[in-house]
Amino acid sequence: MYALKWFGSELSLLDQTLLPTEEVYRHYDSVEGVYDAIRNMVVRGAPAIGVAAAYGMVLAARTGPPGEGFLPNLESSADYLISARPTAVNLPWAVERMLATAREFSAENIKAYKGARYDALISRLEQEAILIHEEDKATSKNIGENSLSLLKPGDGVLTHCNAGALATTGSGTALAPFYLALERGFPLKIYVDETRPRLQGARLTAFELDRAGADITLICDNMAATVMSQGKIQACITGADRIAANGDTANKVGTLGVAILASYFDIPFYIAAPTSTIDPSSQRGQDILIEEREADEIRHINGSLICPPDVPVYNPGFDVTPAELITAIITEKGIIRPPYDADIM
Amino acid sequence: MYALKWFGSELSLLDQTLLPTEEVYRHYDSVEGVYDAIRNMVVRGAPAIGVAAAYGMVLAARTGPPGEGFLPNLESSADYLISARPTAVNLPWAVERMLATAREFSAENIKAYKGARYDALISRLEQEAILIHEEDKATSKNIGENSLSLLKPGDGVLTHCNAGALATTGSGTALAPFYLALERGFPLKIYVDETRPRLQGARLTAFELDRAGADITLICDNMAATVMSQGKIQACITGADRIAANGDTANKVGTLGVAILASYFDIPFYIAAPTSTIDPSSQRGQDILIEEREADEIRHINGSLICPPDVPVYNPGFDVTPAELITAIITEKGIIRPPYDADIM
Repeated sequence: MYALKWFGSELSLLDQTLLPTEEVYRHYDSVEGVYDAIRNMVVRGAPAIGVAAAYGMVLAARTGPPGEGFLPNLESSADYLISARPTAVNLPWAVERMLATAREFSAENIKAYKGARYDALISRLEQEAILIHEEDKATSKNIGENSLSLLKPGDGVLTHCNAGALATTGSGTALAPFYLALERGFPLKIYVDETRPRLQGARLTAFELDRAGADITLICDNMAATVMSQGKIQACITGADRIAANGDTANKVGTLGVAILASYFDIPFYIAAPTSTIDPSSQRGQDILIEEREADEIRHINGSLICPPDVPVYNPGFDVTPAELITAIITEKGIIRPPYDADIM
Repeated sequence: MYALKWFGSELSLLDQTLLPTEEVYRHYDSVEGVYDAIRNMVVRGAPAIGVAAAYGMVLAARTGPPGEGFLPNLESSADYLISARPTAVNLPWAVERMLATAREFSAENIKAYKGARYDALISRLEQEAILIHEEDKATSKNIGENSLSLLKPGDGVLTHCNAGALATTGSGTALAPFYLALERGFPLKIYVDETRPRLQGARLTAFELDRAGADITLICDNMAATVMSQGKIQACITGADRIAANGDTANKVGTLGVAILASYFDIPFYIAAPTSTIDPSSQRGQDILIEEREADEIRHINGSLICPPDVPVYNPGFDVTPAELITAIITEKGIIRPPYDADIM
């Protein structure tokens, strides 16, 4: 099983909207296809979205015209891909890195994108996307090591949404320590929030951790306080979609609630994310654009109506957890503790 | 529309498991039927369960043998009804009140339950059940008045689960002020937690308030922190299933989380409940038995699987909110404020 694989001429994605009942891989050979896959959450999870978008840029470059039109065309594909989902910063991060690679390559001779030189540029872009992909895999491993160093054998750990093998191209961010713990026979009891409305906890986290043989218990989001009050939780760990320069963190809606509950019960609350999730252009949480999604995502579950058909709904996809509620931010480079302003980068 | 109606020889209940897609009334002429209706949540909401159980006792008395066996038979029906659901105290409260009525009637002449005397006893029990029912309706009205006195026009109010016209035989407890506000043109913006796993907020609260014309917005449970952080909520109000002598309150799972979030954001958190919900035999919250329900209630929504089929699940039906998080308890008799120990009764 894989979330994402590059086949040289096309990108293959596990369709996560169909899990856990069906495992279907879809194949994309155009930037439009990759845009749709990100937008419709066939691929999701900030790191995986970034890698998918990098390959999307390769596909865009291949169809772009050689010569003068090449860079403007690639720039417009970049804007297009970035518009697929607004909150995860890994998406613009990866797309802009690809764009920078193209610009650097062309710095001296922008009109010469044809023939062998054009082929070399396409090849350079593919190398860069593969490098982003490889880095993402290594990141999972390092985040897993750093996170596990904060846990004790026997701990109960609560996680929200899915920041696992399905959200990255490695073993995940928040779930990476759980895979490492399994490898090492390090016992953990993992509580998985189901994560309405898209149920990524129930559909994805429970699926991948159950298959891996982890000791998991699925709960509804509103039971997090209950299990904490019963002393079952020693740590909370989630991923992130965008971390502002002051440490405020946007992640799947419901994360803020978990962080407040953890603070009330004196349980450490950790964010696990690659440094590419840190966005220096967002000074504080309120600078982060929060995606509002369609009402029917709440009104229907598996196609079945759960409320009056036209009842008004509010459906923010993310929320922002203020830095003061975050015990530490765990990256591939190390563990960052408050105050975040000084060393977050 | 009604949640519960007594027809003299049978009890009619709106089947709340089928709302909002179907409105089906079911009819019960035996204590076994009423037991099943409570157990399977055809009728739910602590006050409505109490009234249904009172009528269940009338049905039990009617089939009980005249003479010496009458009281033992009624006592065993009482135990049976009480065992249908363990957390809501209104159930044993109503059943024991019916039993006390029978015992009082028989105090002098326990063996004379036959002929006209037997008929008089049955009639006395029916009167008592009707009285409990009438009191419940009046209670809603008074709780509505008392609750509305704590709100300001334009307030955003968050509620969890369903403590409305479907949970009582009047206009509800937590929802009673919203009906009163509608009557009086008092504007409120009501945020409704969907309330997993049974979705009573989405299925019942959104249904009854939408039909009444209230200004409601349905959210997932994990969005409560988000709307609070945006300044949209000025008060939270929920019902209760059992209130301990020190003010600790058991209510639908998720209530504890709402109370902690409200405390974090300095938003008042109110419990609205009839005094029959106060249980002097429970000193503290930890004395209250919390019903644990079956795993498939979480794993399936509207019959459709949302996670791997055998994934372990924890499904507590209720949680306990400690008294220190409760700004006030609103009853039909008035508003009780901390410290609760002195005047809760």
